[in-house]
Amino acid sequence: MQSNPKLFAYIHGNIQPLDTAFLHVSDLSIQRGYGIFDYFKVQQSQPVFLDDYLGRFYESARLMQLTIPLTKEALQDVILQLIEVNKMPLSGIKMILTGGYSANGYDPGEPNLIIIQQPLLLPTQEMIENGIKIITHEYVREIPRAKTINYSMGIRLINQINASGASDVLYQQHGVVTEFPRCNFFIVTQDNTIVTPAEDVLLGITRKNVLAVAGKKYKTEERAVTMEDVHQAKEAFLTSTTKRILPIVQVDDVVIGAGKPGEVTLGLLQDLIELEQKQL
Amino acid sequence: MQSNPKLFAYIHGNIQPLDTAFLHVSDLSIQRGYGIFDYFKVQQSQPVFLDDYLGRFYESARLMQLTIPLTKEALQDVILQLIEVNKMPLSGIKMILTGGYSANGYDPGEPNLIIIQQPLLLPTQEMIENGIKIITHEYVREIPRAKTINYSMGIRLINQINASGASDVLYQQHGVVTEFPRCNFFIVTQDNTIVTPAEDVLLGITRKNVLAVAGKKYKTEERAVTMEDVHQAKEAFLTSTTKRILPIVQVDDVVIGAGKPGEVTLGLLQDLIELEQKQL
Repeated sequence: MQSNPKLFAYIHGNIQPLDTAFLHVSDLSIQRGYGIFDYFKVQQSQPVFLDDYLGRFYESARLMQLTIPLTKEALQDVILQLIEVNKMPLSGIKMILTGGYSANGYDPGEPNLIIIQQPLLLPTQEMIENGIKIITHEYVREIPRAKTINYSMGIRLINQINASGASDVLYQQHGVVTEFPRCNFFIVTQDNTIVTPAEDVLLGITRKNVLAVAGKKYKTEERAVTMEDVHQAKEAFLTSTTKRILPIVQVDDVVIGAGKPGEVTLGLLQDLIELEQKQL
Repeated sequence: MQSNPKLFAYIHGNIQPLDTAFLHVSDLSIQRGYGIFDYFKVQQSQPVFLDDYLGRFYESARLMQLTIPLTKEALQDVILQLIEVNKMPLSGIKMILTGGYSANGYDPGEPNLIIIQQPLLLPTQEMIENGIKIITHEYVREIPRAKTINYSMGIRLINQINASGASDVLYQQHGVVTEFPRCNFFIVTQDNTIVTPAEDVLLGITRKNVLAVAGKKYKTEERAVTMEDVHQAKEAFLTSTTKRILPIVQVDDVVIGAGKPGEVTLGLLQDLIELEQKQL
């Protein structure tokens, strides 16, 4: 991220080269991991579903008792300026709000707002065509409705995911599944109901959009999903801003459904892509 | 912390003015709250119990799959150099190790090691003489044996603590208490047994030292401590590097024992201070 000399970022109230975007070590993100963020896609130089992402960013700030130093309109202006100078028509934009420079290393200061634009890391065609294997881990995020910067558990598990030949880790607690570090989770039941966990999850924008497109063809449910529900599912998939919909064919040692991406999942992916196109 | 122009810090392999100690925004502490730290006292320009703190720092790094870029000996040398240049005979030193500059904002890079020296924030004499009130909150730290930089919950609760007229918050889950965001917890039972939670807590160095001095006079136990145990305790106190031992006289709405600092607690505080003196 730091190595592209042509990219600009917003920090300390200015748009400046990303290479020069630094925070003092007294910042509460460095001292105490305290901050929130959000992340959305840019396609054809247009932010996609920006209102939803901005709404969630302000809601995360409220939940973590931080104040975003810009109004939504001013923030949107900065985002459009950044898109203008960076000239990356297909990309991702991340907004980070930290607890600010702390006088004593614990109490929040004036929050620091940082906005960076990055290349999109899309899933490979092979992952979409063959589906992915995932593992599960006993954990529930501590403030699930807030998109905090705390990924201690997810990053600590990277080596374990790789060692298992898996692509991601699904959190579950006492047999009830919730979400991935960066994605939501769905199952398709044997009677073609589209189900996603209701509690203890981040309210993903892609999750919302998938529920919307799925609702036009299928019954949808937001409810508790158990490991047994997962094992008996006809299909399973994850959703995220960058991954859209990615089929899941194995959970730990259990093959899901036919062990290959299902028709319902792939159909929803097409519907989601069409919904995105309509935004442009 | 940033405002003292005379202080120096260690960062990027050099000792330099604290005012110039910055991390690029691609650092995994800023991107994902990923890092560990440790903190010890300096008295009469000497680190106190340094071996214990260094041991825990390396253990936290191991648990979070990070590598400290210096050997213990080299790290100790840097600490002594910093004490030499900063000339703060009574102070605290914080070592932070982050996930490093991340190429994609998620996978760790080469860890960044930062060492800063700060004034000690000691409890007031009034807090020691009158004891403090605390509140409780349902939560357990996610990787309790590692001293990670994740204080999302503790900092989010600052306003609630203040609004309750309390000084700190004790985490409990399903009625079993564990620890404070930055302190360990002890009770003195009616038969003068010194008890501290065994599981899901950071292994505090002051906790260890208090168990050692307490063991010379009393029976000590590391075991599960319930809210009922707390309410029936004769005395209660917290321990930390800066606070040493601080008497607790009220937990939520329940007055503990006689509602004032107890003899056992104050005696242990004296014993702990004597143990520290022997180190110098």
